[in-house]
Amino acid sequence: MKTLSENKCFGGVQGVYAHASTSCNCDMTFGLFLPQEARDGPVPVLWYLSGLTCTHENAMNKAGAQAWAAEQGIALVFPDTSPRGDDVADDDDYDLGQGAGFYVNATQSPWTAHFAMWDYVADELPALLGEHFAIDLSRQAITGHSMGGHGALTLAMGLPGRFRSVSALAPICNPTETEWGRKQLAAYLGADETTWARHDATLMMRQSGFDGPMLIDTGTADQFIDLLRPEALAGAIAERRQQAIFRLQPGYDHSYFFISSFIEEHVTFHAEALWA
Amino acid sequence: MKTLSENKCFGGVQGVYAHASTSCNCDMTFGLFLPQEARDGPVPVLWYLSGLTCTHENAMNKAGAQAWAAEQGIALVFPDTSPRGDDVADDDDYDLGQGAGFYVNATQSPWTAHFAMWDYVADELPALLGEHFAIDLSRQAITGHSMGGHGALTLAMGLPGRFRSVSALAPICNPTETEWGRKQLAAYLGADETTWARHDATLMMRQSGFDGPMLIDTGTADQFIDLLRPEALAGAIAERRQQAIFRLQPGYDHSYFFISSFIEEHVTFHAEALWA
Repeated sequence: MKTLSENKCFGGVQGVYAHASTSCNCDMTFGLFLPQEARDGPVPVLWYLSGLTCTHENAMNKAGAQAWAAEQGIALVFPDTSPRGDDVADDDDYDLGQGAGFYVNATQSPWTAHFAMWDYVADELPALLGEHFAIDLSRQAITGHSMGGHGALTLAMGLPGRFRSVSALAPICNPTETEWGRKQLAAYLGADETTWARHDATLMMRQSGFDGPMLIDTGTADQFIDLLRPEALAGAIAERRQQAIFRLQPGYDHSYFFISSFIEEHVTFHAEALWA
Repeated sequence: MKTLSENKCFGGVQGVYAHASTSCNCDMTFGLFLPQEARDGPVPVLWYLSGLTCTHENAMNKAGAQAWAAEQGIALVFPDTSPRGDDVADDDDYDLGQGAGFYVNATQSPWTAHFAMWDYVADELPALLGEHFAIDLSRQAITGHSMGGHGALTLAMGLPGRFRSVSALAPICNPTETEWGRKQLAAYLGADETTWARHDATLMMRQSGFDGPMLIDTGTADQFIDLLRPEALAGAIAERRQQAIFRLQPGYDHSYFFISSFIEEHVTFHAEALWA
């Protein structure tokens, strides 16, 4: 593992690290914020999964989450959103290929060689964090934005017992029904839609739900709201009687200004579960 | 004036606007955060001047200041750091020309046609803000980072009575003595160093000081600290018995992670003076 940068931040350290990933078969970069408490021993961790076109950097630089993570004494990890590199398959569209991993393991050509973001976030990166940093892997929570909200919700429901709490900001809620999903799931997983179901938060909510608290915020002025389909997940949550807070925030859009406005509440929400 | 974007943010609006500048003789872009209180009437304003290579965007996206400005009910304005455009003079180095206006009015060729950042920030932009937005021009404060810290300190001392408080993060403190200053002041103002003195915070502090509270933070691990010369300004502050808080923050560097770590204290510091 290589340290690309470390900056003191809110008493802790905001680092950026690169490593050769076995799941993605390429070098991967991630951001990690460790609060000052990590000097004395392992701390809980909140995963932040980013959206389309993002790298490990966007949320790390723009969400403002470190302020609250420092206050709560928890770590933040910011994975990249896909494998990267000249020899990694890509697409001309922003919403497929590099920057658009959708948190699945691709089974279709040309994506299989590198696109295994589910394994990367579910297995490889947690193991690496536990090995190299003062992270308490028994206390994990997960959040994300847009495609990363989709990732957070599907990983949380797909890995029962792993995460104590899950939240999402403007998540893609029902990708099997919209063009932020059908296109990518078909490309990465193939035409058999039964394989898509465990990558659709609404279908997973109908199937099993999440054993813990859930918080979801979406802006009423979100310019992509038709692609997100919050109504589908809201319905599924209500039908399951899932413990959840589902909010539509008046006037907010899909931008990082929306994220930064609510990130304190998300970090605090997770901290409560992580320290319980 | 043209609205480039408006995003709801912490209950208020983060806007980006462009206008034809008469002082800089080109189109200029600025960011403006208005807290929700601005709907009911004029609010105080805190200026944030950015550093070398920055545009209006960097602090707006990365400093996290809106959270605290919203809490305090004050506006934030993020001007650009220089005139811009294909017909605007530039230099191959990052620290001269576009992105490096140094908050002076150039008197030397080829810079005179557009480089009038002092007039832009001191006169033109405040008038524009007062005309188009709910800004109370009788309650202004100013801060900035690096070259922008230099701008904040020199504008505050150069315009007595204008700003109620001044602060700076890792400011260039003594530009007439280092290569972050001598090169640019010579280029913009010419070889006669007597014209440089009113653009050097340390010299201005020796000359006149500031009639109000002053807060300055610099990281002990700042990679540019030799170019900033905090020791010169600290000495001048002490000699003048200037009301000031001058801090060296252990382990912090020159990055936005340093800025975001302390921006709450800066905004709160200004809010106290603005609401007094």
